[in-house]
Amino acid sequence: MADAATPTRDDKFSFGLWTMGWQARDPFGDATRGPLDPVEAVHRLAEAGAWGISFHDDDLVPFGSSDADRDAIIEKFRGALAETGLVVPMATTNTFTHPVFKDGAFTASERDVRRYALRKIMRNIDLAASLGASTYVFWGGREGAETDAAKDVRDALSRYREGIDLLAQYVFDQGYDLRFAIEPKPNEPRGDILLPTIGHALAFIGSLEHADMVGLNPEVGHEQMAGLSFVHGIAQALWHDKLFHIDLNGQHGPKYDQDLVFGHGDVKSAFFLVDLLENGGPDGGAAYTGPRHFDYKPYRTDDADDVWESVAANMRTYLLLKERAQAWRADPDVQEALQAARSPELALPTLADGETWRDLRADSASFEDFDVDAAAARGKHYTRLDQLAVEHLLGAR
Amino acid sequence: MADAATPTRDDKFSFGLWTMGWQARDPFGDATRGPLDPVEAVHRLAEAGAWGISFHDDDLVPFGSSDADRDAIIEKFRGALAETGLVVPMATTNTFTHPVFKDGAFTASERDVRRYALRKIMRNIDLAASLGASTYVFWGGREGAETDAAKDVRDALSRYREGIDLLAQYVFDQGYDLRFAIEPKPNEPRGDILLPTIGHALAFIGSLEHADMVGLNPEVGHEQMAGLSFVHGIAQALWHDKLFHIDLNGQHGPKYDQDLVFGHGDVKSAFFLVDLLENGGPDGGAAYTGPRHFDYKPYRTDDADDVWESVAANMRTYLLLKERAQAWRADPDVQEALQAARSPELALPTLADGETWRDLRADSASFEDFDVDAAAARGKHYTRLDQLAVEHLLGAR
Amino acid sequence: MADAATPTRDDKFSFGLWTMGWQARDPFGDATRGPLDPVEAVHRLAEAGAWGISFHDDDLVPFGSSDADRDAIIEKFRGALAETGLVVPMATTNTFTHPVFKDGAFTASERDVRRYALRKIMRNIDLAASLGASTYVFWGGREGAETDAAKDVRDALSRYREGIDLLAQYVFDQGYDLRFAIEPKPNEPRGDILLPTIGHALAFIGSLEHADMVGLNPEVGHEQMAGLSFVHGIAQALWHDKLFHIDLNGQHGPKYDQDLVFGHGDVKSAFFLVDLLENGGPDGGAAYTGPRHFDYKPYRTDDADDVWESVAANMRTYLLLKERAQAWRADPDVQEALQAARSPELALPTLADGETWRDLRADSASFEDFDVDAAAARGKHYTRLDQLAVEHLLGAR
Amino acid sequence: MADAATPTRDDKFSFGLWTMGWQARDPFGDATRGPLDPVEAVHRLAEAGAWGISFHDDDLVPFGSSDADRDAIIEKFRGALAETGLVVPMATTNTFTHPVFKDGAFTASERDVRRYALRKIMRNIDLAASLGASTYVFWGGREGAETDAAKDVRDALSRYREGIDLLAQYVFDQGYDLRFAIEPKPNEPRGDILLPTIGHALAFIGSLEHADMVGLNPEVGHEQMAGLSFVHGIAQALWHDKLFHIDLNGQHGPKYDQDLVFGHGDVKSAFFLVDLLENGGPDGGAAYTGPRHFDYKPYRTDDADDVWESVAANMRTYLLLKERAQAWRADPDVQEALQAARSPELALPTLADGETWRDLRADSASFEDFDVDAAAARGKHYTRLDQLAVEHLLGAR
Repeated sequence: MADAATPTRDDKFSFGLWTMGWQARDPFGDATRGPLDPVEAVHRLAEAGAWGISFHDDDLVPFGSSDADRDAIIEKFRGALAETGLVVPMATTNTFTHPVFKDGAFTASERDVRRYALRKIMRNIDLAASLGASTYVFWGGREGAETDAAKDVRDALSRYREGIDLLAQYVFDQGYDLRFAIEPKPNEPRGDILLPTIGHALAFIGSLEHADMVGLNPEVGHEQMAGLSFVHGIAQALWHDKLFHIDLNGQHGPKYDQDLVFGHGDVKSAFFLVDLLENGGPDGGAAYTGPRHFDYKPYRTDDADDVWESVAANMRTYLLLKERAQAWRADPDVQEALQAARSPELALPTLADGETWRDLRADSASFEDFDVDAAAARGKHYTRLDQLAVEHLLGAR
Repeated sequence: MADAATPTRDDKFSFGLWTMGWQARDPFGDATRGPLDPVEAVHRLAEAGAWGISFHDDDLVPFGSSDADRDAIIEKFRGALAETGLVVPMATTNTFTHPVFKDGAFTASERDVRRYALRKIMRNIDLAASLGASTYVFWGGREGAETDAAKDVRDALSRYREGIDLLAQYVFDQGYDLRFAIEPKPNEPRGDILLPTIGHALAFIGSLEHADMVGLNPEVGHEQMAGLSFVHGIAQALWHDKLFHIDLNGQHGPKYDQDLVFGHGDVKSAFFLVDLLENGGPDGGAAYTGPRHFDYKPYRTDDADDVWESVAANMRTYLLLKERAQAWRADPDVQEALQAARSPELALPTLADGETWRDLRADSASFEDFDVDAAAARGKHYTRLDQLAVEHLLGAR
Repeated sequence: MADAATPTRDDKFSFGLWTMGWQARDPFGDATRGPLDPVEAVHRLAEAGAWGISFHDDDLVPFGSSDADRDAIIEKFRGALAETGLVVPMATTNTFTHPVFKDGAFTASERDVRRYALRKIMRNIDLAASLGASTYVFWGGREGAETDAAKDVRDALSRYREGIDLLAQYVFDQGYDLRFAIEPKPNEPRGDILLPTIGHALAFIGSLEHADMVGLNPEVGHEQMAGLSFVHGIAQALWHDKLFHIDLNGQHGPKYDQDLVFGHGDVKSAFFLVDLLENGGPDGGAAYTGPRHFDYKPYRTDDADDVWESVAANMRTYLLLKERAQAWRADPDVQEALQAARSPELALPTLADGETWRDLRADSASFEDFDVDAAAARGKHYTRLDQLAVEHLLGAR
Repeated sequence: MADAATPTRDDKFSFGLWTMGWQARDPFGDATRGPLDPVEAVHRLAEAGAWGISFHDDDLVPFGSSDADRDAIIEKFRGALAETGLVVPMATTNTFTHPVFKDGAFTASERDVRRYALRKIMRNIDLAASLGASTYVFWGGREGAETDAAKDVRDALSRYREGIDLLAQYVFDQGYDLRFAIEPKPNEPRGDILLPTIGHALAFIGSLEHADMVGLNPEVGHEQMAGLSFVHGIAQALWHDKLFHIDLNGQHGPKYDQDLVFGHGDVKSAFFLVDLLENGGPDGGAAYTGPRHFDYKPYRTDDADDVWESVAANMRTYLLLKERAQAWRADPDVQEALQAARSPELALPTLADGETWRDLRADSASFEDFDVDAAAARGKHYTRLDQLAVEHLLGAR
C-alpha cells in the first residue's frame, strides 16, 4: 500500500550492508543463513524504497583479498549503485573481527597493531570518499578491557585521541568532504568499552585537535544497554551540535546487544525519538537531517527472505511513528497540556535580559518574599501528557 | 589497633553530615533512627580519625529556620570545628527534598522556582566560603523527567548552563576560593536524570563559560547503577583534569541507589579505584589529592551506635585496600606480567616524533609487510594479571 | 466518550487505596500531596468506572489507632462501599513501614517480631474476610538482607513457610473464602528480597502445607526490575495454575521501582500481557478472570486532581490494548504468519499417543534418517509476526 | 607452592571440556585460539590438580562424525581418563549450536526437531552413563523467544516437561545411576529464555513426573545477569534439596554472559558462596558435596598457554576463599556479632512446640502487650558483621 508509511528516497533511509548480510552466527550458534552478495543488497534495498547503504571495509571486500579482487568487487558495487541510484552516505572500518584487534585497534598496547589499524582505516576512508560518503564512523568495539589491571585508561585515551587526530588531519589534507562520527557502546564484546556512552564520547571529542569535524553516531540499543534514556542522549548530542549520524534499532534494556528492528524494543521511546528527530527542530521542522540509518540484526530464526521483511519493517515502523508524532504535535489537547505543565516556560531564560547575579540577589521576590508552598502546590499534570502520548502512539486519537 | 589501617587526618577522609545523620526513612518505611546533632557529628568524626565534614544547607540548618536560629546553629557548628580541628572541604545545596523542587531546580519549567533555587544556592555558597570549603557540589537529583513528553531537554540543558554560569560568576566576583563539582546520576529519584554519567557531565562542563572552575564529583554507586566501570570513569575524568572531588560508597549493580559502605559492594572495583587514586599519579604517587569523601547510608537495620561502626568501616576498608594496592604495585610478578602483556607500550605514541600520516602511509612495515597473523597470535596473559590482582586483594601474596 | 475504552464494572478494574493515596514521599523528597480520605477514594473510583478497591491494614486504619477509632473508620468505609457498590476483592498487610519490621516480619530474626507480625496479619485477615475479599496478598518487602552475613536464608525460608502455613490453617479453620497470593520482588527496599521472582515464589509455594490455597500476585514492574519477561512469567504462573491475582503497572527495566501507570513503561510487553490475559484462554477466551488490579504511583510532580487522571489512564490504556489484542487475534494475516511459523505445532505432543522412548528410539525417521540441514533451513518468519504485532499495537491495521 | 590453596583431587574440581577448549569466537570476532585435543585436556587438567572433566556431546565428538570416528574418539578419551584417573562426573548435550536448534530443542515448534533433539540427548546419555557420570545437565539455551508473538509459552513448557519426563523414564528404565540437573539462564542467546532463574526451574521441576531425580545446575553468572543474589538462590535450591550440581564462574551484573574466572567478578558474593557450600551444612560441614565445576571462558585476548593459567586461577581462588571462609566462621568476633544481631534466633520456630494459631491469638504478649517501639529500637549491627566479612575476605584478620 502506497500510504504515508511507504518509504521513499526522500525519507533518507539507509542500511548497513552487514545488517542484511548478517549470517546469524552468535556466541552459542553457527550461521543459519548464507552470505549476501553486496550487489544484490543494493538492488533489493533500492526496490524496498531505501536511499542509502553503508559498509565496513570487510563487509564489502573480504579481509585479505588481493588488490585485484578488491578492485573487481568495488567496481561491481559501484555499478549497482549507479544502476539503482542508491547512495553511500557512510562507511566505517572493521577493527574488531580479526584476532589482531583482540585487544584494541586505536588503543592496542602494541604500537604496531595501532599503526596497522590506522593504515587499514586510511585505506577505507579513501574508498568512502571516492563513493561520496559524507560520514565516516568509528565504533571502537575492541577498545576496552575485561580487567582494570590490563591497561592505563588514560594512556589508552591518549592513543585514541592521537589516532583520531591523525585521521582527521588526513581527511583534511586530502580535501575529503567527510566528517567523523564516534559510536559509543558500554560493553560487549569487551567487559568495559572506552567511551561507553554518548556523554563520554562527547567529552572525548571536546579534547580533539579537529573537534569541529568529529561528532557522534549514537545507537539506540547501546545507550539502552546502560539503562539510559536514548531520547535524552540524542537531545544532549543535538544541544552540543554533534548528532552527525544515528543508528536506529531496538533493545530490551541491560542485556546482550540485541540489535532488534527499530521500534521492536522500547516502542514508546522510539516514538519520542522520532518526534525529536522529525519535529524537534526550529518551527517544528526536523532537528536532524542526516541519514535514518538502521543498524540491526534480522532474527537468527529467520531465513534469507525474512531478511527483507525486516528491512521493510524498520522503515515502516519509523514512518508510522512519524505519522503519530505529527498528530501528537498537532493535537490541541497536547498543546493545552503542555501549557498547563508550563513546559514552554523552560525556554525562557532565568535571568531577564541584562540581569546579573547582583540584580537577582536584590530581587526579594525571588527569595525573601517567594511563596515556596504556593509554588510547591502547582501540579504538573505530567500523567495527562504521558497518557496523551501513549494514546497517540496507539493510534487512538 | 594503630596499624596502617587506622585513619589519621593525613588520609583526608571526609563524611557528609547527611550520611551519619540519615534517619533511615526509605520509600517503604519510616525512620528508624533519631536526628543527629551536627555538633555531635563533628566531635565523633574527629575522634574516629576523620579529617573533614561536608553538608547540604538543610542538613545543618533545617529548611525554613529563622535567621536567628540559623546563625545560632552555624555558630555552634563553627565552635565544634574549631575545637576539633575538623575542616569543611565541601558543601552543597539541597534542591531536591522540598516539594517546590519536585520538577527540578536549575531546570524547573517555572522560572520563579529556578530563581529561588539560585538564591538558595548563593546563600549556602556564602556559608561554604566562610567555612573555608574549597569545593561546592551540585547534585541535580530532580533535574530530569519521568516522561519524554514533559520538557525539551535542550532547553533544560540551556537553563542548567545558565544557572551554573551565573553561580560561577558569583563565586568569581566574590573572590571565593571555590571550585564547582557536578555529581552525575542516571536515575532515582527521577525516571531519567539529566547529566546521567561522568561522560555526560564532562561534556556539559565543556560548554560552560567558566569551564575551568567546574569539574566533577563522581559517585561510585551512581556509575554502577548504569552498569558502567567506575574505574574507567574516574580515569577519563582524570584525563580531562576534572576530578575535583569524589564520593566513595558501594553498590550492587543496576538497582535502586544503595549507598553501601565503601568496599561493601564491588570490592574488586574498589581495589582498582584505590590503586588509581593512590598510585596512579606521576612516579606512582597519588593521582588525586583531594578529600576521600564518603557518601553512603548506614543500614536502616542498624542503630545510632552502629552508625559509628559504619564510619570506621569506610575508612578502614579504604586503608586496607590502599595497603593491598601498594603491595600489588611493588610485586615483581605483577611488573613482569605487565611487561609480558606489553601494557607499558601503550604509553608510547603511535607515531614517532615528528611523524605524519604521510610517513605512516609510506611505511610498508605498518601495513603492506605487517604480519597480521603473527601479531594476532600474541597472548596478552590478562588472566594472570587479573589473578595476581585478586590474590593481592585477598591478602594472599 | 463512552467507547470500548470506557471502563465499566464488568472490566473488574481495582485499585490499591495506597496508590491514589500515595503522598509522594520518596527517598530524596517530602510529600507533595495531602492524605486521601478512604471514603473519597471509594466514591471517586466508583465514578471513574472501577469495580474494586484493595488496601493494607494501615492504609485504611492508621497504625496505632485505638479500637474505637478503627471501628469508626471501618464503618465509614463499609458505608461508602455499600453506597457505591464498589467491592473489596483483595486486602493485604503492611509489614514493612514500621521500624519494628526493619529486618523482616515472617523472617525477622527476633521471634517476638515474627509473632507480632502474624497477629497483625490475622487481625486484617478477619477484616478482609468480613469485607468479602477473596484474595489476601503477601508482599514480603522487608524479608531479605543487604549482606549475606546477616542470616541463614534456609532458616528464613523455613520461618516464611511456617508463617504462611499457620495463616492458611487459620483461614481454613475460620472457614473464610480466601486464597493467598504471594507477590515477588527482587530488591528494594532490601538489597535482596527473598522470593525475588515469580519462579522463586512458585517453588516456595510448592513446599507449603496448604499449597492449594496459595498462588501468586505478580507485579509487572517487579519482574522487569530483574530484566525478566513479565509475559513469560505470567504464562508460567498460569501453567502452574497459580495466577491468583495480578498487579498492573509500568517500569523501565532494572532501576528503582517506578510504579508507572500501566502501559507507560514497556507498552509492547503490556500489549502481549493483555492479549494473554484476555485472549489466551480456552477458545480464545480469558486466561485469567480475577481482578485487573493497578498497583502504581501517580507522579510526584502531579497534584491531587492529576491523581484521578492517572486512575483513568490505567484503565483506558488497558482497554485500548484489549481492543488491539482482539484485532491482532482476528487478523487473518496474523493467523497465516503463525501457521507459516508452525507455531500451532507446539501444541502437538512430541510423542504420539501411547508412544514410549522405545518407540522413539526405534523410529529412524527421528534421527538416523532425519534431514537436519533441511530442517535447519526452515525460516520462522518471526520478524513478520513481530511487525504485525507492532502495527496492531500502533493501531495501524 | 603446595599450600592450602593448591588443589588436590579431594577438592573435587571439575572443568567443562568446552571451557579450556573455547576458541574465542565471539559475536564480533573470529577465533583467536586453535582447537584443543580432548586427550590433552584430560592430561593437563589432571596435572593441574583437577578431579573431573565434563563435556557436551559435540565438544568431544564433532557434530556429524561417523560412528567409526565417534568410537575412535571416545576410545582415546577413555584411555586418557584411565591413565590419569580423571573422572567424568557430568555430561550434557549441545542442543544450541547447530541451526536446526535455532528455535529450540525441547520447545521447538516443529515436532520433528523435538524428536531429533530427544534422540541426540539419549545417545549422549548412554555415553555419559558408560563413562560413569552421575549428573546429566540440561541447559536450554535456545528454549525461548525474541518476541512474545512467537509461541505459546504454556505449550512450550508442556513440551519441555514431556521431554524431560521421557528422558527421566529412559534413564530409569535403563537403570542408569544418573540424576538430571537443569541450568537456568535469563537470556542470551535468546531474547528471553524459558526457566530464566533458579526459581523458575525449581517450580518447573515440581511439575515433573520424576521430580525426585531432577534438580538444578545453577551458574553464578546466569543469576547475576538478572541482578539476583546467587547466594540466596543457592540457599533456596539447598532448602528444596535440589542443588545437584553447580557452575562456578564470574560476572559483572546485567550485561552479556561474561563467563569470567570464578572470583574475578563479584568476589564478595563468591566468598559467601564458598562459605555456604563448604561450611553451611550440619555442624559447620559442607552443605554441598558434589563437583565444584567451573564453567567459564578464558579471555579471548589470551593464548593457549594462558588457558591453563585460567584453569589454575579458578581452583586457587576457590581455595583461598575457602580458607578465608573457615577463618570467618572460627572468628569469635564474628560469633559475637551474629549473637548481637540475634541471627541464630532465626532457627527457632515462631510457634512453640504444639502451639497453634489459637494459642498465638490468645497470647497477649504477642500483640496486645507487645512493646513495638522497644522492639523497633533494637539495632541489628549488620554493618559490623559485613565489615568483619570484608576483612576476612581481604585476609586482614
